[in-house]
Amino acid sequence: MFDYKARRQSLYALMEKEGVDLVFLPKHSADLDYLTGTERRVVTFGNVAYTHHWVAGAFLHPKHDPKFVLPRMIVEFDSPNGVDPNTTTVSELDDAYAKFKKVAQSFGNVRKIAVSARTWSETVLYLMQIFPEATVVNAEEIVNKLRRIKSTEELEQMTQACHLVDGVLAQVQGRVNIGVSELDLKTEVNFQMNERGSKTESFDTAVWSMGPKNNRDASDRRSSNPIVGGMGVSFDFGSVINGYCADFGRTVFVGDPSGEYQKVYELVMAAQAAGIAAVKPGVLASDVHKATRDVIVEGGYGDWFRHRTGHCIGLDVHEFPYISEEDHTPLEIGMTFTIEPSVFWPGKVGVRVEDVIVVEESGGRKINKHPTDLVAN
Amino acid sequence: MFDYKARRQSLYALMEKEGVDLVFLPKHSADLDYLTGTERRVVTFGNVAYTHHWVAGAFLHPKHDPKFVLPRMIVEFDSPNGVDPNTTTVSELDDAYAKFKKVAQSFGNVRKIAVSARTWSETVLYLMQIFPEATVVNAEEIVNKLRRIKSTEELEQMTQACHLVDGVLAQVQGRVNIGVSELDLKTEVNFQMNERGSKTESFDTAVWSMGPKNNRDASDRRSSNPIVGGMGVSFDFGSVINGYCADFGRTVFVGDPSGEYQKVYELVMAAQAAGIAAVKPGVLASDVHKATRDVIVEGGYGDWFRHRTGHCIGLDVHEFPYISEEDHTPLEIGMTFTIEPSVFWPGKVGVRVEDVIVVEESGGRKINKHPTDLVAN
Repeated sequence: MFDYKARRQSLYALMEKEGVDLVFLPKHSADLDYLTGTERRVVTFGNVAYTHHWVAGAFLHPKHDPKFVLPRMIVEFDSPNGVDPNTTTVSELDDAYAKFKKVAQSFGNVRKIAVSARTWSETVLYLMQIFPEATVVNAEEIVNKLRRIKSTEELEQMTQACHLVDGVLAQVQGRVNIGVSELDLKTEVNFQMNERGSKTESFDTAVWSMGPKNNRDASDRRSSNPIVGGMGVSFDFGSVINGYCADFGRTVFVGDPSGEYQKVYELVMAAQAAGIAAVKPGVLASDVHKATRDVIVEGGYGDWFRHRTGHCIGLDVHEFPYISEEDHTPLEIGMTFTIEPSVFWPGKVGVRVEDVIVVEESGGRKINKHPTDLVAN
Repeated sequence: MFDYKARRQSLYALMEKEGVDLVFLPKHSADLDYLTGTERRVVTFGNVAYTHHWVAGAFLHPKHDPKFVLPRMIVEFDSPNGVDPNTTTVSELDDAYAKFKKVAQSFGNVRKIAVSARTWSETVLYLMQIFPEATVVNAEEIVNKLRRIKSTEELEQMTQACHLVDGVLAQVQGRVNIGVSELDLKTEVNFQMNERGSKTESFDTAVWSMGPKNNRDASDRRSSNPIVGGMGVSFDFGSVINGYCADFGRTVFVGDPSGEYQKVYELVMAAQAAGIAAVKPGVLASDVHKATRDVIVEGGYGDWFRHRTGHCIGLDVHEFPYISEEDHTPLEIGMTFTIEPSVFWPGKVGVRVEDVIVVEESGGRKINKHPTDLVAN
């Protein structure tokens, strides 16, 4: 589906420009998925760990095919689609360091090696032992330059992922009623996402009530509380299609919305619309943040819009650049990011909307189709 | 509930012994949870990332209280129980490196710094920039020495987590019938775990059929397939209680079990019983593996018992030592580990049992209560 070889050619060009001789990407990184198609394992709250686990990943070098090193348990039990033929398997009784070193040293002279930002320290320490003279740098700086621009094929996955979550909320939102538990709704969302073809949740699904009947903040994302009515119930969830993530949010009111809820709801939607209207190739990410934020500040709720406006999204949920005050990256055609303003005021009101936007020549286009009209059950 | 100060005193004693001046533990590590009570975030398939995210964690030094550094977004939105008063918050517009460096340098001379095994490379590279003369080592070597022995309070959490999953399977296993989808069963397991007080799943819940009517292997853990009967349906899941993880497995047959299924089922249960019988303080982990494995080898299915017998478990699902052929660690009182033999023979038969065992003076005691008798619906 994707031309991994072409992606790697682009990487090699950037490596040459930056004087990077070798790249190491761990098995759990989206970077490796992007450049070779190696599927990431679904993540776990408690670490899963195998003997010699630190070796798991691949070396990329302009003159070679990627060379993978994997512990036997990952080959046997975490690779349902098989592994690359160019894989060195490290078994329990093997000398892992010797095997890893042999692969690492097969690329000749290495003066500068780049590793994914979240490579384990354990692996980095071994790499430094193997290449004591080499400089180690963060590979994100080069790999993100490629990943931030989505191709037509990638946009198709992103669109599927976004439309999937649209469909799930359309099906579930009628169930947002007094007495139904937030856990029930979360369970239904996760079930529907899986049922419709999502590999897993792109992040931990959240369903939470905020308003005058509790003192809850948006940081408190998990509960089995029954819905009591008279408040907004916010949804935040995402699907995964061929590795690509959605990130989606709406707030549904239960009961007769108060005047303040209506006002805030309209304000948040207006802020999102202003953010989308500000999107154009060449405009700075920080300017889109400002355009969105200004609406809420002018509406008098600036103190309660407490986070960045959004973030790029693709194989990871949060990717650079961020739609945030400190990020002055000029937008480019093919970038995909969320615009997700909120007013989270504990004990008072909680409203958020979140959609994925793609940058096109003519401006920003919302990929999600789910309406933003006020819904009250 | 836990005496974090006493845990840190034990850490400081080991640091002195190993000549380690300073320890850095990232926010996402169970090491930090163990030593300070800082809750880990529920994990996400696609990375979640905030501006200056690499700073997130804490420094531990014998002469100081732990000093935390956190990006503002984590303080604001990922810390529902608040943060330690000794926290340096890094906001979007801050010079993150300068703030992080100031905290790191407040401990005086640092010749050797230990970092958790899965600290991000990005953070490690910054630490090396701050301490160019220091040696960086893996903190797991010292922290695991503490974590591997569970206190009475920890055993209470482990027991709660294990009994929770026992109760969930008791409730769900009657639903394992022809036509019910594996996804339905997984959904029900996750819902019940949450409903009974589990923070999240300790790892990705798996429900999968193996046997003569498909060619599926145990690596293929996710499907929406309806159960067709004439095969075993294996469950593998775990809860989280106050950070402590369960890891539990049973196989339920649908229909009339064949002679081979019955034989294999009995063999796997006998293997587990032999493993438990081999547990005693001072016995090597590898010997427990051998005692378990020998039963299956002698029964003629050795080629299809393709993984280690088990692993220690606690705040992480897989902890050192492993009950595995290469691990010659002598067992100690208070260690908790799984004994989880299997026969996974694609197209033929799939059976596994998994329980958590605690090492006591008199031997191994199974914490789980769920029976291991053959169940056929």
